[in-house]
Amino acid sequence: MPSTSLTFSNAAEHRAWLETQAQLPQGFRVGTAKLEFVPQEAPKPSKMTVTLIALERPTDSFAAMFTRNAFPGAPVVIGRARLEEPSLGAVVINNKVSNVCAPGGVEASERLCAEVAKALGLSAQQVLPSSTGVIGWRLPVDSMLPAVREAAASLTGGSVMPAADGIMTTDLYAKVRRAQVGAGSIVGIAKGAGMIEPNLATMLVYLLTDLDVPREALREALHDAVNAEGSFNALSIDSDTSTSDTVALFSSRRVPLPGGGREAFREALRQVCRDLSEDVVRNGEGVHHVIRVTVSGGPNAQLARGVGKAIVNSPLFQCAVCGNDPNVGRLVMAIGKYLGSEGVAVDPSRCELRMGGRVIFSGGAFRLDGKAERALVEHMRGAELYASVPPADGLTFAPPVRFPPHERAVEVEVELGLGTARATVIGSDRSHEYISENADYRS
Amino acid sequence: MPSTSLTFSNAAEHRAWLETQAQLPQGFRVGTAKLEFVPQEAPKPSKMTVTLIALERPTDSFAAMFTRNAFPGAPVVIGRARLEEPSLGAVVINNKVSNVCAPGGVEASERLCAEVAKALGLSAQQVLPSSTGVIGWRLPVDSMLPAVREAAASLTGGSVMPAADGIMTTDLYAKVRRAQVGAGSIVGIAKGAGMIEPNLATMLVYLLTDLDVPREALREALHDAVNAEGSFNALSIDSDTSTSDTVALFSSRRVPLPGGGREAFREALRQVCRDLSEDVVRNGEGVHHVIRVTVSGGPNAQLARGVGKAIVNSPLFQCAVCGNDPNVGRLVMAIGKYLGSEGVAVDPSRCELRMGGRVIFSGGAFRLDGKAERALVEHMRGAELYASVPPADGLTFAPPVRFPPHERAVEVEVELGLGTARATVIGSDRSHEYISENADYRS
Repeated sequence: MPSTSLTFSNAAEHRAWLETQAQLPQGFRVGTAKLEFVPQEAPKPSKMTVTLIALERPTDSFAAMFTRNAFPGAPVVIGRARLEEPSLGAVVINNKVSNVCAPGGVEASERLCAEVAKALGLSAQQVLPSSTGVIGWRLPVDSMLPAVREAAASLTGGSVMPAADGIMTTDLYAKVRRAQVGAGSIVGIAKGAGMIEPNLATMLVYLLTDLDVPREALREALHDAVNAEGSFNALSIDSDTSTSDTVALFSSRRVPLPGGGREAFREALRQVCRDLSEDVVRNGEGVHHVIRVTVSGGPNAQLARGVGKAIVNSPLFQCAVCGNDPNVGRLVMAIGKYLGSEGVAVDPSRCELRMGGRVIFSGGAFRLDGKAERALVEHMRGAELYASVPPADGLTFAPPVRFPPHERAVEVEVELGLGTARATVIGSDRSHEYISENADYRS
Repeated sequence: MPSTSLTFSNAAEHRAWLETQAQLPQGFRVGTAKLEFVPQEAPKPSKMTVTLIALERPTDSFAAMFTRNAFPGAPVVIGRARLEEPSLGAVVINNKVSNVCAPGGVEASERLCAEVAKALGLSAQQVLPSSTGVIGWRLPVDSMLPAVREAAASLTGGSVMPAADGIMTTDLYAKVRRAQVGAGSIVGIAKGAGMIEPNLATMLVYLLTDLDVPREALREALHDAVNAEGSFNALSIDSDTSTSDTVALFSSRRVPLPGGGREAFREALRQVCRDLSEDVVRNGEGVHHVIRVTVSGGPNAQLARGVGKAIVNSPLFQCAVCGNDPNVGRLVMAIGKYLGSEGVAVDPSRCELRMGGRVIFSGGAFRLDGKAERALVEHMRGAELYASVPPADGLTFAPPVRFPPHERAVEVEVELGLGTARATVIGSDRSHEYISENADYRS
């Protein structure tokens, strides 16, 4: 469940709320710069934003988790090595080109890091690079170097908003979440939208804190938070695990933890990660409904999470939810597909399924009639973020809202009757807007 | 690869070709009857066809394979038990309601079998039931019994077409394939994913032969054929495994196998299964392009097939293909996602990827430029079955063709550099038509 209950009626209201969340923790500054370039692979001008997040003083307390995709991007390869460095002082992030398996990719990222280092008085090894965007394209480094200098010149404290805006690609709106612990805070920003089923890390997420937590404790807390129920490893928009997923956490160590503060810090970090996960799904490409699946009675936590993922990743269930169609047969299909493929025997008579709090399956059979059908339709309509608007050209659908109207979700509960393990997974439906977004992403 | 190279310019041409394939093997008859009913779960009239396939004399030589979904339909539960019977004499098939986890489902299917048995002079245990359609709805048995009698009265030999038509719900066209061995033949029909009222990707396949192959050899041959490269277990339209999938094979044992005919029979059966798999994918819900992935250099056959499945099931790659967008970065993402989640270390420098015969990745990096981009677009356009037509209501997309224009596919080749195992997988793109069909399937 999200920590807050938020309803917005327009983008300006949402933006105003974001700004209340955006105050940077002590010791951090952000800056951005825009540029235009022509990729070698598809000769049509493209736009890019370079974003810098800088510490006022390099810190020894940082943590990062990266994608498990077997073809990681060059920034991920470099980032893994940076974890061994004694200190880091800045992150340089670009959108539009993800720098994955492009010829000379590692060298290109290192040139950017060196330029940042020169501008900020650091060594290149103190700079963490991140890239997101098209896979396969080369990073236009020559065009990016002046932008790096411009971003460095624009560094300011106060608000994380320029960075939250700068890292977006197909996101409809920026994502910022915060938590307070004593006199310090944790602020997180995320870029989501597509190619999202993180595997032990996620999209691009940057978590900044001034709370004084040393490196090892910080890394443990990040691992815990990323794997928490409803956090990054429990979410999926389209079952596709990115080659660039990165979650990074930095502490400027400016504010002492209050007494007993270590557990408060961990809980606050989990909360920020859960909230950002919600934001990422809610702003997923073409998402009309967020789906939250709570699985209980699992034989173990992995299978419980697997059942939840199978439901939110089922194209047919996703389409049914998109159409507010209570085709709950597809729910049973998705559970059975997963358990069958895992060779897990289930006793249908011990299973129970609920949707919107209503029992739809128990004692081995569906409990459906006209009244149940109407109640399920009402639950789905209530959780709808928007309905499709026929596009002017008849083909290119675009979401009609650019803010999250509310925090409601289609609620699915599954009792498996196989044990005591639980899991909470969040995902989304599948819509015309997703197809339009991805059938010609780069044009 | 399909056994034939077929191009059709209209539905009548395609239909004429189907009829050349449809001659029933000796010893079989088919009959159908239509009915209307009102489901208890959604009070709106629905239409159904009951199809009978009958042997002139019950046979001891039959084989069937069923879904692995952990929530199988009642006909699958009964069908598994029927495999132990000494002989079978008929199959009764209905569309529209799949009879899965509906209260009293097994009793309902047994009542149908008993009615068929009465009409044909069999025992109920000699009748195999099959159902496809909405999951969760109850079978309208009382309305179906008169239709069973009518179908039995209409049984005729000669052509399998009435059955190929009768098992369709929303398929755009019937699917019939045949192979000749000596004086005998194998004829197969399939029901795949349809358009106007798709039914959860349920696949029903019936294979009929007059060739005299005894039960154990027949079952081995079916197992072999279903698992062959490019056959049913190597195809995916939307990654959702039905609760009703059934492939059944019957021999009337009328025609002696020619000398050395056992292997010829197995090869002919594999060919019919591969051809029907192609048909099922090509007529999949909203399919604009068939995608054929050939994987080589796998560490074992299971992982090789897994890589192929990961590619054809990647929503992002599917959308790119739909848009004729050569976003081959998503190809690498999909392979890396799967291998990463399986914990398989791959050396990118030993991998090679081709699309449309052109090398797009080798030596650890992409080989892309404007010329390659244009060639890939051309390959995808050449394999396109149709382009979306903006719908009259702005939202409800429907395919503009009701026949398979050609047999071309988007060809992807993956060399993993990890071993010698190979696999061929066929799948499809993801389109607006799929969303339209499935976002409001039952309304």
